[in-house]
Amino acid sequence: MKEQIPFIDLRQSESRAPLYRQIYEAVRLAILRGEFASKTRLPSTRELARNLGVSRITVVNAYEQLLAEGYLIGKIGAGTFVAPALPDDLLQTGAEKGERSAAGTNPPAPLSPFGRKLLSGDVQSARVHAGTQFRPFQNGLTAIDLFPFEIWWRIAAKYHKNPPRSILGYGDPRGFYPLRQAVAAHLGSARGVNCSAEQVVITSGAQQALDLTARIFLTENDAVLVEDPCYREACGSFAATGARIVPVEVDEEGLNPAKIPGAGARAKLVYATPSHQYPLGATMNLARRLALLDWAEQNNAWIIEDDYNSEYRYAGRPLASLQGLDKAGRVIYVGTFSKTIFPGLRIGCAVVPPELVDVYGGARALGDVHSAAFDQAVLAEFIAEGHFARHVRRMRLLYEHRQRALVAACEKHLKGRLEVKKAAAGMHLVGWLPEGVDDRRVADKAAEKGIKVSPVSSYSLKKKRRGGLVLGYTAFDERQIEEGVRRLSEAL
Amino acid sequence: MKEQIPFIDLRQSESRAPLYRQIYEAVRLAILRGEFASKTRLPSTRELARNLGVSRITVVNAYEQLLAEGYLIGKIGAGTFVAPALPDDLLQTGAEKGERSAAGTNPPAPLSPFGRKLLSGDVQSARVHAGTQFRPFQNGLTAIDLFPFEIWWRIAAKYHKNPPRSILGYGDPRGFYPLRQAVAAHLGSARGVNCSAEQVVITSGAQQALDLTARIFLTENDAVLVEDPCYREACGSFAATGARIVPVEVDEEGLNPAKIPGAGARAKLVYATPSHQYPLGATMNLARRLALLDWAEQNNAWIIEDDYNSEYRYAGRPLASLQGLDKAGRVIYVGTFSKTIFPGLRIGCAVVPPELVDVYGGARALGDVHSAAFDQAVLAEFIAEGHFARHVRRMRLLYEHRQRALVAACEKHLKGRLEVKKAAAGMHLVGWLPEGVDDRRVADKAAEKGIKVSPVSSYSLKKKRRGGLVLGYTAFDERQIEEGVRRLSEAL
Repeated sequence: MKEQIPFIDLRQSESRAPLYRQIYEAVRLAILRGEFASKTRLPSTRELARNLGVSRITVVNAYEQLLAEGYLIGKIGAGTFVAPALPDDLLQTGAEKGERSAAGTNPPAPLSPFGRKLLSGDVQSARVHAGTQFRPFQNGLTAIDLFPFEIWWRIAAKYHKNPPRSILGYGDPRGFYPLRQAVAAHLGSARGVNCSAEQVVITSGAQQALDLTARIFLTENDAVLVEDPCYREACGSFAATGARIVPVEVDEEGLNPAKIPGAGARAKLVYATPSHQYPLGATMNLARRLALLDWAEQNNAWIIEDDYNSEYRYAGRPLASLQGLDKAGRVIYVGTFSKTIFPGLRIGCAVVPPELVDVYGGARALGDVHSAAFDQAVLAEFIAEGHFARHVRRMRLLYEHRQRALVAACEKHLKGRLEVKKAAAGMHLVGWLPEGVDDRRVADKAAEKGIKVSPVSSYSLKKKRRGGLVLGYTAFDERQIEEGVRRLSEAL
Repeated sequence: MKEQIPFIDLRQSESRAPLYRQIYEAVRLAILRGEFASKTRLPSTRELARNLGVSRITVVNAYEQLLAEGYLIGKIGAGTFVAPALPDDLLQTGAEKGERSAAGTNPPAPLSPFGRKLLSGDVQSARVHAGTQFRPFQNGLTAIDLFPFEIWWRIAAKYHKNPPRSILGYGDPRGFYPLRQAVAAHLGSARGVNCSAEQVVITSGAQQALDLTARIFLTENDAVLVEDPCYREACGSFAATGARIVPVEVDEEGLNPAKIPGAGARAKLVYATPSHQYPLGATMNLARRLALLDWAEQNNAWIIEDDYNSEYRYAGRPLASLQGLDKAGRVIYVGTFSKTIFPGLRIGCAVVPPELVDVYGGARALGDVHSAAFDQAVLAEFIAEGHFARHVRRMRLLYEHRQRALVAACEKHLKGRLEVKKAAAGMHLVGWLPEGVDDRRVADKAAEKGIKVSPVSSYSLKKKRRGGLVLGYTAFDERQIEEGVRRLSEAL
């Protein structure tokens, strides 16, 4: 067909859209209204530009858009034509189909087993919607008001003002090397962890170290031994792989290897918190540590040592880590800076046997490439310059003091209704309720009073225990602790 | 047995260890040397303290340590005894067992299928050890020298100097809400993405959005359709789930739904880069976009739209996203800030159907809880205040200029040896080699000259193509581009 000049009067247009857009719209509407039939040749860009009194590039832009969207076919300069099948017809069809689908005639494919577990809530984490409220006695929070932000800030300023290229591009999935060095040195001296910087994998919090380990070791129907009661999000990551959770009894000395049930004999992985059992707070004694390593050796199993609270020991010297006692390279050591810096930082680590470092690195490379680069660089310097050790020492004194305040306040306001004892380590205490009192109900009541306590039963797997409340004390000052206990007393 | 007072002469000790530690060591050695037999009762802490002229708490600390480590049993105050089995005996045994194991008599349990794929290198990412070198013509890097760090820093300073508690504790796994709002608004206006802030999930880079999607939808033996050639790390995440990778042909109009092979009929997921096919650079036209949505509808499949380069379009208006055209809620839209801010930031996003938001949130809660909090807050403000849009506009002009410089330099130095054409979008060009030239060999030769080019064949799955080189131009100025092309010319 012969070309035509479309009727476009830009002077009458009230549109404030760019000129090219007005031309695009006019031509598009002319096509849709049938004013330009299918396969009609359009005027050249030069001709239309002259006709409209606009620059040629404006018309080129409009035509390019129409070409890209399928209204026109051909090539600018060599002839452009109205397309045989118009996109708006296609769009219409799409929309109708969309409505059919929304009505449910053609449901999408099911999710993976992992996706379905999340959808059904089978492995849902309590954290899905939970922004931290900083309400007494929320557990696992640091005394952030006392964090030396001025020092952190000074280091951050240096990196921001003159950012080295090494932290702006894609970094090493195993972590920023100076941070891996700083962590290896710290864990070697403070925790007896026996590792080189090359064995340290920086993760986005301990949770990522746990989750990667779950995925790297576990698959459908594998058995994994966990402490009963257990840190819920660890169990969540294990269950998400389809593994079977096998609970092992915990007492005042932590996980008891002698109590590993028969079903545990084929377990691939054991999860333990030897420094400070979560949530009961026991420290695993040396004999049991060695027995657990021995059990793992006999049963070809791996061990995750979650050393989450090791920095805060108020009595005695910390016991050497399982990792440091392990001669066979069976221990995956997991640490976190959430409990020493602040949780929002999202930095933790795994210390893994040398032959597995690149497996973790590969999982990070596919998973999220690496942790935020600025924070890694700042933390490396914060540790290397001694600020970290100093801050931890200060917090240890403060937290011991706050623990005492909590014990005293409970003694004063809750005597006979909540049994709270001094503990040698950690960031929380467990308050035991009188026999027969439902800890979940108490926690709900407390929540109504603005008090956040986690019921021990919510961590329990098999063994029924007396009801108890997990009381975090580290983020709250004496006044808040006293007031919190008073309100808890009303709830009880 | 009767208690004895151990012989400990602190005055003669040259040790500078704390007193409690010296007592601990002395008692420990006495036990190990057999001076205190098994089950011997130790003196009370009070008695020993008096005897040694130290405070009682010092002795308590020493005893507590010995109790914790298993040298003593019993209870301070009620009588402490030398343990029947000594930890150092246990340690000895442990060490021997360790050596046996290291010699390989008792190998540990195998990794999961995921872990084994990583160990064997089947799904290894090129990024495992790759810190960015910023060598011409590395792809996917921004012109970081021109990033407005002074503005970024001003915002960051505000958050660091007076950090709101909301970013210090545990945050929402779905992302920092103001950032989700800013991203929804930006994607709505710039990309025609049809979503509320509630549908935006902030991820640690686009890679995490891809990896989560792979895990949420795919499992062993599911089919996933990918473009051929394809972004390698996307394929890596799909293959890591055990899914089958089914390649679909790509031409100058991007992925061609008409070319989906028969085996694709049962695919659960299609991966596409409609804005700018990776790595070939085609834009998928509207007819194909609609046909792909239609195909997904007919085949109950989901679509991942990886919109990685959409900000940099130099001709015509960007086409609306697949997500914006989709009426059935089948599209998972994936975006990134690595190409607009810098990769080290590790922030990207997924826009997902409302019913799947908490599935993604749940996967984050178990996986790594959330992305770094400070960076999320700073980015939210950087977008909301208009700095992001301004920076992208500036970079668009700059990158177009740099693309032209690359085309001109290739014209000058590589005429007849590398065919490079102007492109309408993106951050890289593909230079095509003469027929029969092996692009991997050229890339190796170029690496020797300090030039980083990715061979097109390294992205190819099935279809054999002419050899080509992916040339990123955005991070290099005219001088670097000219010099890089000159060196590439030597390599060719």
